[in-house]
Amino acid sequence: MQTDEGREVISLAIKAKEAARLMGQSAIGARNQAIFYFYEALLDNKEAILAANQKDMARADANDPQTKRLKLDQGKLAVVIDGLKALIKMDDPLGRIDLARELDKDLNLYRVTCPIGVIAVIFEARPDALPQIAALCVKSGDAVILKGGKEAEETNKELFACLQKAMIKAQLPVDAVHLLTSREAVKALLAADKYVDLIIPRGGNALVTYVQKNTRIPVLGHAEGICHIYVDSTADGEIAKRVCVDAKVNYPAACNAAETLLFHKAVPQGMIVEIVGALRAKGVEVKGDAEIARICATRSLSVLPADERDWTTEYGDMTIAVKMVDNLDAAILHINEYGSGHTDAIICQSAERWEKFFGGVNSAGVYRNASTRFADGYRYGFGAEVGISTNKMHPRGPVGIEGLVTYKYKLEGQGQTVEEYSNGEKTFSHKDLQAEK
Amino acid sequence: MQTDEGREVISLAIKAKEAARLMGQSAIGARNQAIFYFYEALLDNKEAILAANQKDMARADANDPQTKRLKLDQGKLAVVIDGLKALIKMDDPLGRIDLARELDKDLNLYRVTCPIGVIAVIFEARPDALPQIAALCVKSGDAVILKGGKEAEETNKELFACLQKAMIKAQLPVDAVHLLTSREAVKALLAADKYVDLIIPRGGNALVTYVQKNTRIPVLGHAEGICHIYVDSTADGEIAKRVCVDAKVNYPAACNAAETLLFHKAVPQGMIVEIVGALRAKGVEVKGDAEIARICATRSLSVLPADERDWTTEYGDMTIAVKMVDNLDAAILHINEYGSGHTDAIICQSAERWEKFFGGVNSAGVYRNASTRFADGYRYGFGAEVGISTNKMHPRGPVGIEGLVTYKYKLEGQGQTVEEYSNGEKTFSHKDLQAEK
Repeated sequence: MQTDEGREVISLAIKAKEAARLMGQSAIGARNQAIFYFYEALLDNKEAILAANQKDMARADANDPQTKRLKLDQGKLAVVIDGLKALIKMDDPLGRIDLARELDKDLNLYRVTCPIGVIAVIFEARPDALPQIAALCVKSGDAVILKGGKEAEETNKELFACLQKAMIKAQLPVDAVHLLTSREAVKALLAADKYVDLIIPRGGNALVTYVQKNTRIPVLGHAEGICHIYVDSTADGEIAKRVCVDAKVNYPAACNAAETLLFHKAVPQGMIVEIVGALRAKGVEVKGDAEIARICATRSLSVLPADERDWTTEYGDMTIAVKMVDNLDAAILHINEYGSGHTDAIICQSAERWEKFFGGVNSAGVYRNASTRFADGYRYGFGAEVGISTNKMHPRGPVGIEGLVTYKYKLEGQGQTVEEYSNGEKTFSHKDLQAEK
Repeated sequence: MQTDEGREVISLAIKAKEAARLMGQSAIGARNQAIFYFYEALLDNKEAILAANQKDMARADANDPQTKRLKLDQGKLAVVIDGLKALIKMDDPLGRIDLARELDKDLNLYRVTCPIGVIAVIFEARPDALPQIAALCVKSGDAVILKGGKEAEETNKELFACLQKAMIKAQLPVDAVHLLTSREAVKALLAADKYVDLIIPRGGNALVTYVQKNTRIPVLGHAEGICHIYVDSTADGEIAKRVCVDAKVNYPAACNAAETLLFHKAVPQGMIVEIVGALRAKGVEVKGDAEIARICATRSLSVLPADERDWTTEYGDMTIAVKMVDNLDAAILHINEYGSGHTDAIICQSAERWEKFFGGVNSAGVYRNASTRFADGYRYGFGAEVGISTNKMHPRGPVGIEGLVTYKYKLEGQGQTVEEYSNGEKTFSHKDLQAEK
């Protein structure tokens, strides 16, 4: 923290904290206006943004898988711009009352949503994520410190300039938004627990794990996505095949893609062969345990041997591990032991098995007869996604804008003292009031 | 973790984790039955429990302030026993659905409450807290590892024996409840992030701070309670006096007791003198800044000098710091800078000032014209209190049984794939279903 960089980050975080207070008290009209001006600025500066991205792309290593994510083209930018329009239409997330209770006459308690404060977002590549998350923070009345990657420096600078202009035009505090680039800044941010209230790492496992291990600030995110599909002995074969293929093939790099299939030992061999065959036909590399390999060999389906490490590997590509389990309990135990608590599905026709699976699996998403790929804020209808959390505690799973707000208790009295209630002079009524949503 | 003690804690935590799964799937009837048998056992063993407590008391240092908390008498035990009865009547906190949404025909999403898993509770003294929190964990379907203090060893052993008997009688897994005593155990628990999902420290600042700094497991609690009362220039003098006296004097050792009073500089001197005088009359030591000291000196009210350190001191006794501030903004800044985010109050008659104070103060509880001492799960009508959290994120403030549950997303489909929605074959309906509470 003794470096110049470190000091700069702290001084900027202090400014952000002060600006956060003003943001939290700003009218929804002003926040929406800022998002609208941001939208306009992005439209007006489209060419400059795309040109900046081409500069970043020119510097990038074409063989690095990151580079694909770095690219910002007309299509991706249009999606971002449309997203801002949709965000403006969303209700104000602040000032919502989800508990309203009369403690006694003229002593009313409310639980009211409010901003979290200062949010640090650490990106890898993906310049399109920057305007999305920055606009969400404007909507939620939070200050945001964006730490972009070196690789997206030119693009981020252009995007951020649009955001700054928008804040000024909407007369919101410009210190509520910051952009950092250097790697040193990450260390300083992680240590700034006096000023930063939440960290959202948007990047690969290595980044997320690093952040989780090196800060006392709450982290919203997930390191790994080791999602399972368990095909029960009561499974419908057609459903099993559709879901397994989709969960692996639709977008293998996603955190909600399936990494391991588990088959109940009573699943007909024909069904196993059918599913493995369908995956192979799509070009998926299948790694199976001895039993699965034996069954597939009878139909000349090539399966590589799987070992213990495969159960904890997030391939993130066209590879899947397949294992046979003795029963539902063994499947649940496997998932809880090797999974990452992200999203896991059962394919079954039995309501009883489903209930047991749902109760037994400790994951943020537990599905029946549906692809794990549905685990996503947009698909859940949240309108926007801040991230996916594999924490046990709230917020858990795909997190919409509600992940950027917290709440405080508001108590309005007329001079009441606790003494009056302790000595029996007065008693609590604890009557629920009509809560506005 | 290489010690025998460490290994023992881990092996017990593994058992707790497995038992937690069974607890989470147990019927509410069985969980309530266990609480009822616990209630019965405590009644039946009252004499043995009180005798055990006398043994602990005999060993204790009578001059240690902890010792008062160690004492368990007829009255305290009766409160605990009554609490269990009330807990049985509370609704099942599990399986509640707070979001129910049709994503598309035959593709329904629910957000359902479920247990957190394994909860470790670390106590100092206060044997009465043990049965309360253990019973809450039974109700919420969590497994619980209770780490009691050496000083309460005999009492805790008796209390825990009642709990174990109750679990067995209710046919719930007895491995869902554990009692540890040694100091070594704390270290092992803090490192057991693979098995322990939440830590609740119930004790002084030093314990809570130690826990917060030495674990990656989420911590529910608060280290400090530096609560403020800001007396605005629009304050009603009578209300100000009542609230200030109550917040300091009602129970000075509580975390929600006031530690600092801030006066707007336009508050009439007579009102300041009246309030300081009332505090002095109750035996409160008042530490004031130069301006407050000057005003009080004119009426021969003795005030000790306050310095910078006083603004960050949780006295926990009959001492209070008093400061004059230039305006409302200065009060808000002082509270956000020196406070602990617990509970802070304004005394004012102006709706506008109240709105600004509420918006500007970043605390779990922000009050108007009411004593900070109301910050408590029972007074809020939560029926029971798990703890008070000064975290920015959920759960925040006084936390009831909802702090012992989390949620997971349940998705029920008929073989839907994300591919169908990406390629436009199908579209999401995102229609809210009738949510059952």
